[in-house]
Amino acid sequence: MSSQTDTGAGLRAGLDNALAHLRTNADAHMQRLDDFLRIESVSADPTRRDEVRRAAEWVAGWLREMGVDDVALHETTSHPIVTGAWLGAGADAPTVLVYCHYDVQPPDPLDEWVRPPFEPRYENDIVYARGAGDDKGQLVMHLAAAEAWLRGAGGAPVNLRFFFEGDEEVGSEPVERFIADHPELLEADLCVVSDSDMADDDSTPAVTYGLRGIAYLEVKVRGSQQDLHSGQYGGGVDNPANVLVDMLASMVDDEGRVTVPGFYDRVRDLTDDERAAYAEQPWDEAAELDRIGAPAWGEGERGYTVLERMSARPTFDINGLWGGYSGEGAKTIIPAWAAAKFSTRLVPDQDYREIESLLKEHLESIAPPTVRVEVRVIHGGAPAITPLDHPGVKLASEALEAAFGKAPLFHRSGGSVPVVAALDAQLGLKSVLIGFASPNGNFHAPNEWMPLWNVRDGIEAIVRTWERFGSVSPADLRG
Amino acid sequence: MSSQTDTGAGLRAGLDNALAHLRTNADAHMQRLDDFLRIESVSADPTRRDEVRRAAEWVAGWLREMGVDDVALHETTSHPIVTGAWLGAGADAPTVLVYCHYDVQPPDPLDEWVRPPFEPRYENDIVYARGAGDDKGQLVMHLAAAEAWLRGAGGAPVNLRFFFEGDEEVGSEPVERFIADHPELLEADLCVVSDSDMADDDSTPAVTYGLRGIAYLEVKVRGSQQDLHSGQYGGGVDNPANVLVDMLASMVDDEGRVTVPGFYDRVRDLTDDERAAYAEQPWDEAAELDRIGAPAWGEGERGYTVLERMSARPTFDINGLWGGYSGEGAKTIIPAWAAAKFSTRLVPDQDYREIESLLKEHLESIAPPTVRVEVRVIHGGAPAITPLDHPGVKLASEALEAAFGKAPLFHRSGGSVPVVAALDAQLGLKSVLIGFASPNGNFHAPNEWMPLWNVRDGIEAIVRTWERFGSVSPADLRG
Repeated sequence: MSSQTDTGAGLRAGLDNALAHLRTNADAHMQRLDDFLRIESVSADPTRRDEVRRAAEWVAGWLREMGVDDVALHETTSHPIVTGAWLGAGADAPTVLVYCHYDVQPPDPLDEWVRPPFEPRYENDIVYARGAGDDKGQLVMHLAAAEAWLRGAGGAPVNLRFFFEGDEEVGSEPVERFIADHPELLEADLCVVSDSDMADDDSTPAVTYGLRGIAYLEVKVRGSQQDLHSGQYGGGVDNPANVLVDMLASMVDDEGRVTVPGFYDRVRDLTDDERAAYAEQPWDEAAELDRIGAPAWGEGERGYTVLERMSARPTFDINGLWGGYSGEGAKTIIPAWAAAKFSTRLVPDQDYREIESLLKEHLESIAPPTVRVEVRVIHGGAPAITPLDHPGVKLASEALEAAFGKAPLFHRSGGSVPVVAALDAQLGLKSVLIGFASPNGNFHAPNEWMPLWNVRDGIEAIVRTWERFGSVSPADLRG
Repeated sequence: MSSQTDTGAGLRAGLDNALAHLRTNADAHMQRLDDFLRIESVSADPTRRDEVRRAAEWVAGWLREMGVDDVALHETTSHPIVTGAWLGAGADAPTVLVYCHYDVQPPDPLDEWVRPPFEPRYENDIVYARGAGDDKGQLVMHLAAAEAWLRGAGGAPVNLRFFFEGDEEVGSEPVERFIADHPELLEADLCVVSDSDMADDDSTPAVTYGLRGIAYLEVKVRGSQQDLHSGQYGGGVDNPANVLVDMLASMVDDEGRVTVPGFYDRVRDLTDDERAAYAEQPWDEAAELDRIGAPAWGEGERGYTVLERMSARPTFDINGLWGGYSGEGAKTIIPAWAAAKFSTRLVPDQDYREIESLLKEHLESIAPPTVRVEVRVIHGGAPAITPLDHPGVKLASEALEAAFGKAPLFHRSGGSVPVVAALDAQLGLKSVLIGFASPNGNFHAPNEWMPLWNVRDGIEAIVRTWERFGSVSPADLRG
């Protein structure tokens, strides 16, 4: 009992010191954020490999500076993974694995940015830059929170392991292998992932308990060896661009459902409770539509609300189309080929590897014999669900409420974080997702933005989460 | 009678001198061809405006050099039109208008050219370069033939007017206005157009008696203001790329027919005689397929042969598709917009302006209210048919047979030459189409090529055509 009381008092003193450190270092932390956002860590762009590495080294540098041990860059088949550990809380304290990613989406179309994507713009306490919300801003917050405990309070109430990757935006290909090869570097009682968003723009925090998976493919339809004159051959040969649009159009039926046989076989239906929770979610359909600037919400898959369709139902989206002539004026050709990138967002319990195969086989099966069709899997990731009654969820919620002054909402996200499914499958390690980006923050789009008040309160929330986690035993946190 | 005999003897002597001039100037004419092909006269490319003008000036320069009068570059809303006249044959001789175009298609994809498109490559008596066949090579042939008469024989048996444009590959927009504004520069008894091909690669010449028209449009589908995260919004909004492929796919039905209401209303059916002629045409379906490298001919519009579909039936072809992400790897976006260029080849008696409107209205009518659709007409041209019993056709056929040693075949072409329809509609001027390109010459594609034996024999054929035309009165040539 007295030991517990001592620990409690120690935690409180530590927390005060950590929070004081945040106040005295607020400007320094903002400067760190600015520095980090200037690194062009676009993982999809081969010409920016060095920039991606520079981002990894920047993260490693700060970790070392604050006293984290065994900080290392691990080479992968793609970009480096950064790990480090601070185990000063001892074997009786829980160990938390912190996951974020330091890579970002490509910034194009560049001409739609008010300022260049890697030159942060500040306006009304908001920062605009590629990666501000997704996910470099949130990674910086975790580093600032760790520094607050390690430097400001002389140590944290939990052991901290860090796991930062540079391939999330291109499918986290290397993480499965890394998890298999280095379980000792990831040994923890719970993983905390910050790569999601708040419930709204009014400081309501959120805990994400479900994620969609993804299967992302590319299809190329080839006809003749070269572009043909559309006058000379038009009507004679099948035009690969015509064939491509026919094939793609056939993938979704008039009810908004994917037509690939077997696609829905493993889809877990929404429960009545879940649908009730969706219905109660504070979400202004009209305001959101206004924000994204589309004329109307889609009809989508019939029988589901917009919110349900955006997070609890699978999708079929064309991500890119190209082929033939797209320059000025007219070029009267039958293109030799046309191609598309497309992806399906997956929900529990769809298996992304199975879906990849189904999609590939289906496209190959519907291709007419007048063309050659190549279907290539670009990347995949599993969907995930974390139990709402997990102790980590409860403790994190208390910390979020303390920092933001509001209880968090619990929701499923439409996006994908492949590492969450991989950690669960391979190490039995559960994840709690607490995110601080704005739900309207233009992730993957021009003028990505992040409210700086979320950055400040979010750092405090992380500091407080470690305090709450430190109040229970490793077994209790494990759930 | 004696005057007629004198004229006959004079024509024969003139012809001999003109043909002798061709022999002694063969190398010089090949050098002219090489020089001309090096000018990058891509009319669709705004960055090459000066090169297009340089080609016009090159043409004008040679015309002046050989003694053609009133050579002029006429400014238009796009590229210059070059005209000139040699009227030394007098009022009793027919006047011929010679039409070719000095502009070329864009050369991309550049990496598929064996040598750069504007550095002519010579191999086995063939020249490979952009414009070699379509149409700079044929324009050079007309200039060489005119030079042979004017320089080698001291004058031609017909009056010659020249009408060379630089916008054919982008739809000949300026010619209608030019024809309306300058009928005096185009006054003639017959127009000879050389922008078509031979019947085969075995020196069988061809007279083209039918041309398809074209309606070329662009459609852009816009959804949100910016690209959206496909995880966050996937399933909620209609993806503009999905909508675009749905709309385009719906334009052609399962029988290969265009679904736009009214599209076929004015299509002139093939007569039984025409179908019989098509069936007899020497054309190796398998060899042609092998040449273009497609796996199979398309099924196309049911009920018609491949040859019929390629020249006597209308089409719907997507010429280009673009939108979203087409770079390396994956970008998980719902693109803000997606676009396509598409065109329909038209046959007599379709009206391209009517078809443009029908296409535009139809696309706008099928667009869902969840997107914004913009349809833009890029260019159009009327289909045309020249009577097979026209005296110009008969006389030109005699000249072709004399030069190539084989009687020409008569066929309809799948392509479009907008000026032919415009001259007929505005001036009542008929055209005879004699072309010298190879039917497999990669027009509009990489490694465009032209047999040099066609160039040599074709110049002779033009020289002989002027001789045959000179043997009749203006009224007789007019038909």
